[in-house]
Amino acid sequence: MRILVLGGAGMLGVKLAERLAHDGVLAGEEVSELLLADVVEPSRPAAARFGVEPVVADVAEEGIAGELVASRPDVVFHLAAVVSGAAEADFESGYRTNLDGTRELLEAIRRIGRGYRPRVVFTSTIAVFGAPFPEVIGDDQCLTPLTSYGTQKAIAELLLSDYSRRGFLDGVGIRLPTICVRPGKPNRAASGFFSSIIREPLNGEEAVLPVPEETRHWHASPRSAVGFMLHAATLDTGALGDRRCLTMPGVSVTVAEQIEALRRVAGDEAVRLIRREPDETTMRIVAGWPRAFDPRRALSLGFQADADFDEIVRVHVEDELDEKVLAPPG
Amino acid sequence: MRILVLGGAGMLGVKLAERLAHDGVLAGEEVSELLLADVVEPSRPAAARFGVEPVVADVAEEGIAGELVASRPDVVFHLAAVVSGAAEADFESGYRTNLDGTRELLEAIRRIGRGYRPRVVFTSTIAVFGAPFPEVIGDDQCLTPLTSYGTQKAIAELLLSDYSRRGFLDGVGIRLPTICVRPGKPNRAASGFFSSIIREPLNGEEAVLPVPEETRHWHASPRSAVGFMLHAATLDTGALGDRRCLTMPGVSVTVAEQIEALRRVAGDEAVRLIRREPDETTMRIVAGWPRAFDPRRALSLGFQADADFDEIVRVHVEDELDEKVLAPPG
Repeated sequence: MRILVLGGAGMLGVKLAERLAHDGVLAGEEVSELLLADVVEPSRPAAARFGVEPVVADVAEEGIAGELVASRPDVVFHLAAVVSGAAEADFESGYRTNLDGTRELLEAIRRIGRGYRPRVVFTSTIAVFGAPFPEVIGDDQCLTPLTSYGTQKAIAELLLSDYSRRGFLDGVGIRLPTICVRPGKPNRAASGFFSSIIREPLNGEEAVLPVPEETRHWHASPRSAVGFMLHAATLDTGALGDRRCLTMPGVSVTVAEQIEALRRVAGDEAVRLIRREPDETTMRIVAGWPRAFDPRRALSLGFQADADFDEIVRVHVEDELDEKVLAPPG
Repeated sequence: MRILVLGGAGMLGVKLAERLAHDGVLAGEEVSELLLADVVEPSRPAAARFGVEPVVADVAEEGIAGELVASRPDVVFHLAAVVSGAAEADFESGYRTNLDGTRELLEAIRRIGRGYRPRVVFTSTIAVFGAPFPEVIGDDQCLTPLTSYGTQKAIAELLLSDYSRRGFLDGVGIRLPTICVRPGKPNRAASGFFSSIIREPLNGEEAVLPVPEETRHWHASPRSAVGFMLHAATLDTGALGDRRCLTMPGVSVTVAEQIEALRRVAGDEAVRLIRREPDETTMRIVAGWPRAFDPRRALSLGFQADADFDEIVRVHVEDELDEKVLAPPG
């Protein structure tokens, strides 16, 4: 089992590689080789029992995709992307990586031909949907992105489905919820506060909450996201028919519910570190975001979300803080 | 008012040019120049009171789109496409014209910049939708194409909306019904019989009906299609918001109803020329096609369909047969 991960240096790429190294198998087959590609050098996961090759490569550059798939990997995880804010700030860069890069990859696979038909797992996003939408969004929601990033991901979804239908590859697109709690430093993404208000207090640091506590959103832990990818790599795609892209399950909670989950895990002291500082711009952006989904198709296909937001907080404590956390209330 | 038509040699391109030549104005402004581009030489519409320049040009070829928009046309009609059957038969050719060609055009417009923001009317298709769908399809139907052609058109719709949202152009995408009655010779398109069973009997020739008479489909006359384009070129796009693509109104009829309309216009003698010859392949393809739409957005924006299928037959007689037709029954 040869595996290629595009975007192997990103937060989810690193976690996926670590999980593969830990498991050593995928779809019941031993992993023999892992190629990790990204525009910056991916790190090697610790203790892999198989060959790992980190490569610095830009898939949007002509010819690069062909080199990356030349060894005919059985599974390709395509996570490489210019993220939402950056794709909005730099129009050309977003289209280059998110559209051209994806197309280069799909074309490189198609051109190999001779029966080569790898599983391609593509991480899409709930940003393919744009307001107005219903309070709970079903699997038949139309694609109406309101950002260039969402547009590029929606286009990639359409390509993935068509290339699959034509038999060039065996694609599964998974629309990830907002990942929470993102490890690492605060970033400038409009969605950053959803993670900040949990992550910073758990570190004994102050966090800013720019929206009202009634704000509802759709979340999944990084661990769940990796679980989605692995499940997408192994499921029987016969059940998908021609609709290859799926909204992933998640946890729909208000900010108030997030805060109560934090309180249960880390106590009042942690919650006191959240400072309310309403920000009109952030509020306006977030008002256009989905609040909840009814992802029946994904659930019926066996994708599993976190049980609740408490679990999302605990996953962060376990995976990022070595289970060290402020003592919960007595 | 300078106008560019891409696909100016196609059936609808020719009719659009003739109508522009006849009207002499668009959106209340006098037409000063009409550039007709296509991969084969477009013919000049008769009696235009403005300059007409036919150009042989392939918009998918690098640099060509830039030349076509260099004169900064106020309105661009983008009709150029590799059609459904051809895009399915030749994967690369379909993507080249329908995706790359569209992107080259949008990029060429964006690169001009300096306040240049033309109205771009893009002819999309009901093939952006794929079964399963409801009996009557609403404006919120998700994009689930089941052909490469439908995929390419859906992608072009997404690009048009994003380029419009970013302010690079002012796009309107119109999803045309199946055009009926298509003038000219029978072709090999699976949908060809919808026109054949009207057109051939009106010419005193036999036509083959490969599907049951209960088969229901969604139609518009060529004259209506041109009307949609002109309305799309002139409407206030403020009312569209960020959803720039619209399902056009049409006439939903069964084949039996088509035949009765033919009988009313041309009598029993014409109807007797329709020969039933059921074809499994055609039946299977057509079973996956939309039967009816509820195009409220387009209607509320003033787009007008043919009144009924009788009108569709009469339009063909008036526009293609110089009103000569077999005598209707006494």
